[in-house]
Amino acid sequence: SRCASRLLHVPVERDPSFAQLLDKDVSFFEGVLGRSGVITDPDALEPFNRDWQKKYFGHSKVALRPKTTEQVAELLSYCSSRRLAVVPQGGNTGLVGGSVPLYDEVVISTAAMNQIIEFDDVSGTLVAQAGCVLQALDEAVGQRGYMMPLDLGAKGSCHIGGNVSTNAGGLRLLRYGSLHGSVLGLQVVLPEPLMAGNTAGGSSPDAGGRILDLLRTLRKDNTGYDLKQLFIGAEGTLGLITAVAIQCAPRPPSVQVALLACPSFQAVTDTLRAARQRLGEVLSAVEFLDASCSVLACEQLEGVRNPLVAAEGEQGAAAVTHGSEALSPFYMLVETHGSNQEHDLQKMEQFLEAVMAEGCVSDGTLAASEAQARAIWRLREGVPEALARKGAVYKYDVSLPTGVMYDMVTALRGRLEAAGFGSGAGVQVVGYGHIGDGNLHLNVSAPRYDTALLDLIEPYVYEFVARHRGSISAEHGIGLMKAAALPYSKSALAIELMRRIKGVVDPHGIMNPYKVLPRG
Amino acid sequence: SRCASRLLHVPVERDPSFAQLLDKDVSFFEGVLGRSGVITDPDALEPFNRDWQKKYFGHSKVALRPKTTEQVAELLSYCSSRRLAVVPQGGNTGLVGGSVPLYDEVVISTAAMNQIIEFDDVSGTLVAQAGCVLQALDEAVGQRGYMMPLDLGAKGSCHIGGNVSTNAGGLRLLRYGSLHGSVLGLQVVLPEPLMAGNTAGGSSPDAGGRILDLLRTLRKDNTGYDLKQLFIGAEGTLGLITAVAIQCAPRPPSVQVALLACPSFQAVTDTLRAARQRLGEVLSAVEFLDASCSVLACEQLEGVRNPLVAAEGEQGAAAVTHGSEALSPFYMLVETHGSNQEHDLQKMEQFLEAVMAEGCVSDGTLAASEAQARAIWRLREGVPEALARKGAVYKYDVSLPTGVMYDMVTALRGRLEAAGFGSGAGVQVVGYGHIGDGNLHLNVSAPRYDTALLDLIEPYVYEFVARHRGSISAEHGIGLMKAAALPYSKSALAIELMRRIKGVVDPHGIMNPYKVLPRG
Ligand SMILES: Cc1cc2nc3c(=O)[nH]c(=O)nc-3n(C[C@H](O)[C@H](O)[C@H](O)COP(=O)(O)OP(=O)(O)OC[C@H]3O[C@@H](n4cnc5c(N)ncnc54)[C@H](O)[C@@H]3O)c2cc1C
Ligand SMILES: Cc1cc2nc3c(=O)[nH]c(=O)nc-3n(C[C@H](O)[C@H](O)[C@H](O)COP(=O)(O)OP(=O)(O)OC[C@H]3O[C@@H](n4cnc5c(N)ncnc54)[C@H](O)[C@@H]3O)c2cc1C
Repeated sequence: SRCASRLLHVPVERDPSFAQLLDKDVSFFEGVLGRSGVITDPDALEPFNRDWQKKYFGHSKVALRPKTTEQVAELLSYCSSRRLAVVPQGGNTGLVGGSVPLYDEVVISTAAMNQIIEFDDVSGTLVAQAGCVLQALDEAVGQRGYMMPLDLGAKGSCHIGGNVSTNAGGLRLLRYGSLHGSVLGLQVVLPEPLMAGNTAGGSSPDAGGRILDLLRTLRKDNTGYDLKQLFIGAEGTLGLITAVAIQCAPRPPSVQVALLACPSFQAVTDTLRAARQRLGEVLSAVEFLDASCSVLACEQLEGVRNPLVAAEGEQGAAAVTHGSEALSPFYMLVETHGSNQEHDLQKMEQFLEAVMAEGCVSDGTLAASEAQARAIWRLREGVPEALARKGAVYKYDVSLPTGVMYDMVTALRGRLEAAGFGSGAGVQVVGYGHIGDGNLHLNVSAPRYDTALLDLIEPYVYEFVARHRGSISAEHGIGLMKAAALPYSKSALAIELMRRIKGVVDPHGIMNPYKVLPRG
Repeated sequence: SRCASRLLHVPVERDPSFAQLLDKDVSFFEGVLGRSGVITDPDALEPFNRDWQKKYFGHSKVALRPKTTEQVAELLSYCSSRRLAVVPQGGNTGLVGGSVPLYDEVVISTAAMNQIIEFDDVSGTLVAQAGCVLQALDEAVGQRGYMMPLDLGAKGSCHIGGNVSTNAGGLRLLRYGSLHGSVLGLQVVLPEPLMAGNTAGGSSPDAGGRILDLLRTLRKDNTGYDLKQLFIGAEGTLGLITAVAIQCAPRPPSVQVALLACPSFQAVTDTLRAARQRLGEVLSAVEFLDASCSVLACEQLEGVRNPLVAAEGEQGAAAVTHGSEALSPFYMLVETHGSNQEHDLQKMEQFLEAVMAEGCVSDGTLAASEAQARAIWRLREGVPEALARKGAVYKYDVSLPTGVMYDMVTALRGRLEAAGFGSGAGVQVVGYGHIGDGNLHLNVSAPRYDTALLDLIEPYVYEFVARHRGSISAEHGIGLMKAAALPYSKSALAIELMRRIKGVVDPHGIMNPYKVLPRG
């Protein structure tokens, strides 16, 4: 694993202050959860030990599946007293190696905590256990006329607790805002009891005063520091989120989705500006992908096609080849959510006329059915999956001023080509992402992970971002992958303050060690 | 002052660990700020020592007006080394006694920190010094096609730093979200240096490593804990905010404002539901006021009238009397912000037709000009000012489920009447507020502050709120007024975690003492 670490720029050693798992520990866990809640079989452990990208591999010997907050409190109480390190795991779709152990940490999975606690039809507030799958929640509230305020490609697997822990952005942040705004309350289990005189063992009702109940459904509540904010995006390093209260949005009666072809990146940013202006309050998503992404998605994924490229009637990817006449350098997905279809269509048509007249858009299609809308979304949402199928992927998720955003892609591509890592070597540098939020996903696809290639990419990418006062992680978080790179985005004082806060709630550092904070 | 404290339910004593101001301190301050930046004249100090309501009076002997972040850092460095307690003060419009000293704390005012640092036309991101007045900022960005994402009755005086420090909600939270979502970055000066080996005196460039620079304008940035969130709503107890980066919203080309008369509170909530459904994405504000508030505003304020009450041509309040035939029990203000006037008007008309047909609304008027819209807003925004002119006001700002919201007003009114504090005694219990966010402003107007009356109101109001799992402070904050009542909304564990966080950044407790956290 030291070798793998080098390949991933993760130069850490196991912290010797953590205990090793003993048989008595497993017995204790079984006592709390029953046999079925404790996984020790190596084959069954495998999916808990590797990430979605199959890039990070841990060596945990036990994964736990609690069902209740009280069980989580008992588990953390025990792990803390035994100095067993812990990794909280949701849907394990994280892209920065945060959700898997690095060594032999205990995995606590929220997979069995998947109950909806409460939904209020009138206010649209949902309270759910942390392990509910995002898509399942969206379907449940959908039946009551609402939608979840976030959506992302991993919705079929990711958990709401994982979303909150990563402060997931996703496809509609532009319209529905960040989780810092839409999360109304949290319930969190802390690794240590904070209250003096309340340190009784795991059998007390609140398991030693570790259950931090911030679970309210109020839209406004200014009573002291907004503690829940600390756990939004903390990536499991401060506590384990067991329940989430969140403000849902009314499900829009009218949804319009357009796919547009743009001749240049300048045209992409001009189209974004026009969309903001002309679609105003109904605009719900503006995404982009470059030609290579479109080709990759169509090549790698069953049934995905680009309706602006494949000839009528030709399904599949056969007709789509990189560099073909029909391919445009960039594609954009523009979506509206509104309450009045007639008004929305009128706005959308005026927008499309304007951008085509100005030459920002060379071709476009407006979905005429839900199926067509889904197919357009599938093209965009399929990109990460297509990249993962192709081979190794170095993923960067950065915020940059839109003006220089694609320069980053072009510059890296040139740099790698010059060093012999061009398309001849099977290396592809592609860009896509949430352009409406200034968020670029820069991906390097390669036949395999390779130290020489990695050394060309990092810290080059981080330096480029820091130079433009961007963020080295717009939405994926820091995890293991970027812990050492945090200083590119945060000052020494800010990092010190993070450490101090970590020290308050997790003095022994058992919660998701090696992640987020750079080694001291 | 002990007597005044009893009148206000503020049973605290001066913390003897704080130093008293000496002449050498004033000399030091003058050395940093020059003579003009240091106020010691008793008359000139008076406005710094009393709050907007003239309810809280402090005894500070010095108020400081720094112009730069570096000056603030030097001042805090000095105050911390001398153990001089500090009160940050913005526009001093806060309603919970948080912005004024209780004893002899040093006031640091942001009034001279009123420069706009940067505005980006394309992304709508504003960076400004903390002392900029909200209305001045709104006018500045208005000239570039944007609006501030918050608006409140105190906009002509409150500072953006004060808004962030109180997490001000205001009139359009419903549409533009909370500051936890729209604030993109902060610069904060901490009272203590956190970095070892960087404790040099006040003359180093960053004045001893106290300047926490979180000033980014990125829409998305998931690089470690979102530290800025801690300072949003911390009411000056953790550090002094010196600059704010905030996401502005496009200024809507179409603004529609309606005033509606509702026969009952049930009709008010039904109208709210209809507004949500029919106005959807263009809805920007839903406010309500009861009949007494309307009467008060028209009586107390020059040029304010209720267009649904005063007969045509009769300006002023003469025609409006409490209980007159023409008065309706409730009024609502419904506003839309949209990009297309034709569409918005059509939605508004359909909404108005529906609520009138259903009997939720007995009378209504849609502003036909900007002047009419302003006049309707003035009626609603004038209520706190009218109450303040009338006499003493006990102000409560609570979140409650809309279903029971007005029951709180009726119940308290009944309770006070039964105890001899009815209208005969000059006492009035009124309700208004941001009903679209579940936020009620419950106000008791009385000829003077009176312990017997206060004992009837508190803890009764807090108990009612706690019983319905509401919030004892929806938006005004805790300040001095509600510090002892915090446990009605927050668990002991949550309060302990707040204390620990306070301990990390302000171990000597010099930042705004006696406020927010209940005494230990
Ligand atoms: C195809 C695909 C598309 C994606 N698209 C987006 C996108 O558009 N926007 C975006 O922001 N992200 C995206 N992601 C990554 C995103 O971070 C995750 O999908 C999601 O938010 C993580 O949820 P999860 O339940 O899988 O968490 P995991 O991967 O299991 O965990 C993520 C982190 O949170 C911690 N954690 C998980 N649950 C808890 C808990 N209950 N308490 C405390 N800590 C916990 C873990 O320790 C880990 O550090 C995508 C991923 C994939 C595979
Ligand atoms: C007529 C009227 C209407 C109002 N309407 C609303 C409303 O609709 N919604 C709402 O939320 N509030 C409302 N308020 C109260 C609201 O809290 C304040 O108006 C505003 O947000 C406070 O800003 P300020 O600059 O006046 O802060 P101040 O009153 O000066 O200070 C408020 C608190 O913040 C701290 N503080 C101030 N500046 C800083 C700084 N730079 N750094 C650190 N701490 C600081 C102070 O110590 C104090 O604790 C209203 C007030 C009035 C008088």
